[in-house]
Amino acid sequence: MELVVKHMPTINRAIQAIHERTFFAQYPEHPSPKIYGEDADKNGRKTFQSLVGKKFEELLQGNSDQWIGDEESPYMQEPLNISYPAFSSEELLSNADTAFHQWRKVKADLRAAILVESLDRVKNRFFEIAYATMHTTGQGYMMAFQASGPHAADRALEAIAMGYEELTRFPESVVWDKPMGKYNLKLAKEWRAVPKGISVVIGCSTFPTWNSVPGMYASLVTGNPVIIKPHPGAILPIAIFVAELQKVLKEEGLNPAICQLGVDSFSNMITKELAEDDRVKLIDYTGNSTFGNYLEGLKGKFVFTEKTGVNSAILDSVVDIDKVIGNLAFSLSLYSGQMCTAPQNFYIPASGIKTPDGVVSFDEFAQKFADNIQGLVNNPKAGPFVLGAIQNKNTCSRVDDFGAGKGKVWLESTQVENPMFENARTATPLVLEVDAKNEDSFSQELFGPIALLIKTENTTQSVALAKEMAIKHGAISCGAYTTDSEIKEMIADEMSLAATPVSFNLTGGIYVNQHAGFSDFHVTGGNPAGNASFTNPEYVIKRFTWVGFREPLK
Amino acid sequence: MELVVKHMPTINRAIQAIHERTFFAQYPEHPSPKIYGEDADKNGRKTFQSLVGKKFEELLQGNSDQWIGDEESPYMQEPLNISYPAFSSEELLSNADTAFHQWRKVKADLRAAILVESLDRVKNRFFEIAYATMHTTGQGYMMAFQASGPHAADRALEAIAMGYEELTRFPESVVWDKPMGKYNLKLAKEWRAVPKGISVVIGCSTFPTWNSVPGMYASLVTGNPVIIKPHPGAILPIAIFVAELQKVLKEEGLNPAICQLGVDSFSNMITKELAEDDRVKLIDYTGNSTFGNYLEGLKGKFVFTEKTGVNSAILDSVVDIDKVIGNLAFSLSLYSGQMCTAPQNFYIPASGIKTPDGVVSFDEFAQKFADNIQGLVNNPKAGPFVLGAIQNKNTCSRVDDFGAGKGKVWLESTQVENPMFENARTATPLVLEVDAKNEDSFSQELFGPIALLIKTENTTQSVALAKEMAIKHGAISCGAYTTDSEIKEMIADEMSLAATPVSFNLTGGIYVNQHAGFSDFHVTGGNPAGNASFTNPEYVIKRFTWVGFREPLK
Repeated sequence: MELVVKHMPTINRAIQAIHERTFFAQYPEHPSPKIYGEDADKNGRKTFQSLVGKKFEELLQGNSDQWIGDEESPYMQEPLNISYPAFSSEELLSNADTAFHQWRKVKADLRAAILVESLDRVKNRFFEIAYATMHTTGQGYMMAFQASGPHAADRALEAIAMGYEELTRFPESVVWDKPMGKYNLKLAKEWRAVPKGISVVIGCSTFPTWNSVPGMYASLVTGNPVIIKPHPGAILPIAIFVAELQKVLKEEGLNPAICQLGVDSFSNMITKELAEDDRVKLIDYTGNSTFGNYLEGLKGKFVFTEKTGVNSAILDSVVDIDKVIGNLAFSLSLYSGQMCTAPQNFYIPASGIKTPDGVVSFDEFAQKFADNIQGLVNNPKAGPFVLGAIQNKNTCSRVDDFGAGKGKVWLESTQVENPMFENARTATPLVLEVDAKNEDSFSQELFGPIALLIKTENTTQSVALAKEMAIKHGAISCGAYTTDSEIKEMIADEMSLAATPVSFNLTGGIYVNQHAGFSDFHVTGGNPAGNASFTNPEYVIKRFTWVGFREPLK
Repeated sequence: MELVVKHMPTINRAIQAIHERTFFAQYPEHPSPKIYGEDADKNGRKTFQSLVGKKFEELLQGNSDQWIGDEESPYMQEPLNISYPAFSSEELLSNADTAFHQWRKVKADLRAAILVESLDRVKNRFFEIAYATMHTTGQGYMMAFQASGPHAADRALEAIAMGYEELTRFPESVVWDKPMGKYNLKLAKEWRAVPKGISVVIGCSTFPTWNSVPGMYASLVTGNPVIIKPHPGAILPIAIFVAELQKVLKEEGLNPAICQLGVDSFSNMITKELAEDDRVKLIDYTGNSTFGNYLEGLKGKFVFTEKTGVNSAILDSVVDIDKVIGNLAFSLSLYSGQMCTAPQNFYIPASGIKTPDGVVSFDEFAQKFADNIQGLVNNPKAGPFVLGAIQNKNTCSRVDDFGAGKGKVWLESTQVENPMFENARTATPLVLEVDAKNEDSFSQELFGPIALLIKTENTTQSVALAKEMAIKHGAISCGAYTTDSEIKEMIADEMSLAATPVSFNLTGGIYVNQHAGFSDFHVTGGNPAGNASFTNPEYVIKRFTWVGFREPLK
């Protein structure tokens, strides 16, 4: 119970933050030596380098005679040659099933405390995780540090806190005392939050911890054993989380198989075997819609998905067009558009964008936007670090193939040189003009650095199209610019019906791409971009069942 | 806002009751003249009688040139000849769609207050609803009063309160204030609970209000317009609820189509047309598993079901065998086993049931059980009123056809005379012995007065079978009798994994059939008996989506 005493204040503070919904960060996001220690960065890089080319031997989930690993660095375009112990689906499931009956009987407060302890230990490895993330996902250093380290840990804490609150929302037991006239009928009643069963968390290649730890920790805090099935291309960052948790579990005398890493390879994926097994009740998934829809259709499972979407930017009227363009250009370029929140469809009225200094025409906007992106990506002190590298070769092909015949090209995609990694796989944004009439050309997610400038009749049509795309194809973000309060309310109301969050009039150092833990619900769950949300109450409640027991009072 | 001031204390008290989970009743369950007035019963009966044979003209949902109605009294086996205005699915959906955009903009507190006001008005019609329920469902008078009146209204209030709590769980807006080192980044953030869309509530023939009002009020409080599609055989009780709500809506200047009654006939059911329409996002359903599974499989809907189950009684050891048998005989006979919570499979060890006075053998138990039932049903002052009448002829056929060749018949089903209704359709319990080896014979719900006494090897097998039935075929209740605390915990733990609530050692005036509002979660949602629960947080949360908006602070 030492851990409970140690961590309950953090859990309670996190619950408070969930309800306050203003800024809260348990794990500092700045990679400052003052916070993390003078040598933390250097040591993290060294540790990462020492892992390359070796067996990852930290896991406490038994011996395996098969060691596999397909990870490649998008910065070096070379294999990392890190190998992980492989287990059959049956081994993983059978171990999880055994661990289930131990874990479900651990009290909620101890479960929560063990999980927070694991995050505190991961904190000591944020820099190592940052380099692991760079060299699997292609993210720039700063994003790799923040997203995979502190922001992921905060999202995990949020899931723990929300789960703990729900688990303790109703009394464990009461005396039910009903007046019957001449006597009182008294029953001793008791309720248990019964976990659903084995949980499988399926990772993605671009955000291997940020997108996986919410489901992992939500399932664990509610008593379910977890099998993490990472993307074969991005294993190491989440492997470190799992290893640290397994160590805490072992120290507490518990079975480390409560959370296992189930690694597979591109040539022999085990995801479907796991997902379809009857023992698996919970599935968390981030990735393409085809596989996400297949998972959502499985019978007898509770499935939490983040799939693809068509995000929009709606331009109506602005105070300062240059600041707006600067903001949008950065949003699009950040990690080369490989974020689920990156804007893709830019809706601009044919009549232009209203400003205090007169109307900015469609063409003027397009030219300024293209120029601004070029300025950013060609700035050797900013471009390569903002863009990062391209995780998947197919993304480059998509960018190369997309433009032809679709409309006027305002900016060609090209490559930039990375001063540290000469072999980095890069692609700068492609900016293309399409007409609102050609719906086919903008009715799908074009993952990567592709922006479509869509010429509409007016803002009403812009909003109608953004809403329609979100309802039909999903959307995770929408950036809207208007100085008119009526139009603002119209946009909010219409996009709310498409369950799409809207960021209004962002300029400066805040971007539509960023969804903050404890405040922004990431993915709403209300449109085809995904059926779940980090972290709303539904995200944890569906992982257990309230079951009641009663007996006449003795 | 007068209504808000009037009803917010009740809503807050109901929220408190949900969290305390001990006895709470807003609507008194005793049909006492002291509570409801000297003439309430007499007037209620008269009003009901005055409705028979006429058009039901209270609804405020426009004119119809088609009036239909198939209700028949199980007590008289004659049509009631009450007719209701019929509307096409398209008319209902189009009206609901219009009403949606008004209702979703009404503030949560006013929505909740309007709904509570409707319940307070329904309170004045509890007796009329009781007679309407008797003469559509066949319930006895006392159950008809309690279940369709006060208990239903309490369940409705519970759904309103739970919904209101969730809607107000997070702040409407905050200033998000993030320290950035040299400055603070400030965003004005706002969240809206966006209702999903049109809700269709599909009623059943046995509990036309109790099973429908939770979904109806849960959808309404969260801002969704509702179409009630009652069972063609049991319309009047819920029609009165709808009519009273429509009057309040109209008085508040709102569109009464926010809640419509969508009546159909046995020969022309509109349920599928409604359920499959794209505009319908929420479906609540009580009824058979075949149709329930079809609804659960519809894409793009949030479906809340209560289907069928195989409820169990597990007999291990008791203090007083006669009291136990009296309790179980009553549970089985109540409304002739036509309750979703009625016990069906009685698991008894071949070695008998342990008591302080020695072991009661299987045969001894069976004989005492049969005798006790016979004593109850043949008692002219109790039997007819406890049994009520059989809603559906098919239930009688099932009882008639089931026994043959399955095992030893300990008690034949027969009919009883009802002193008030000579033509009442009745059936007393059939009690049959089957061996635990013949799983096929007890692996399905046998809706109606059928009890199977299953001879098991021991209590461990009894529990294993009860658990297996619940996992495979669903279960809504389990009654267990044991004086051994280890066995009790084993039963609780095993049945919890089958998401089945357990009532231990009930004797006297409390029965396994009864699930109290504000305390017992009715149906857990964790086994095939249904995917929803009255009223856990999930039941309301899935009816809306949290969507956030943000903008730099001015």
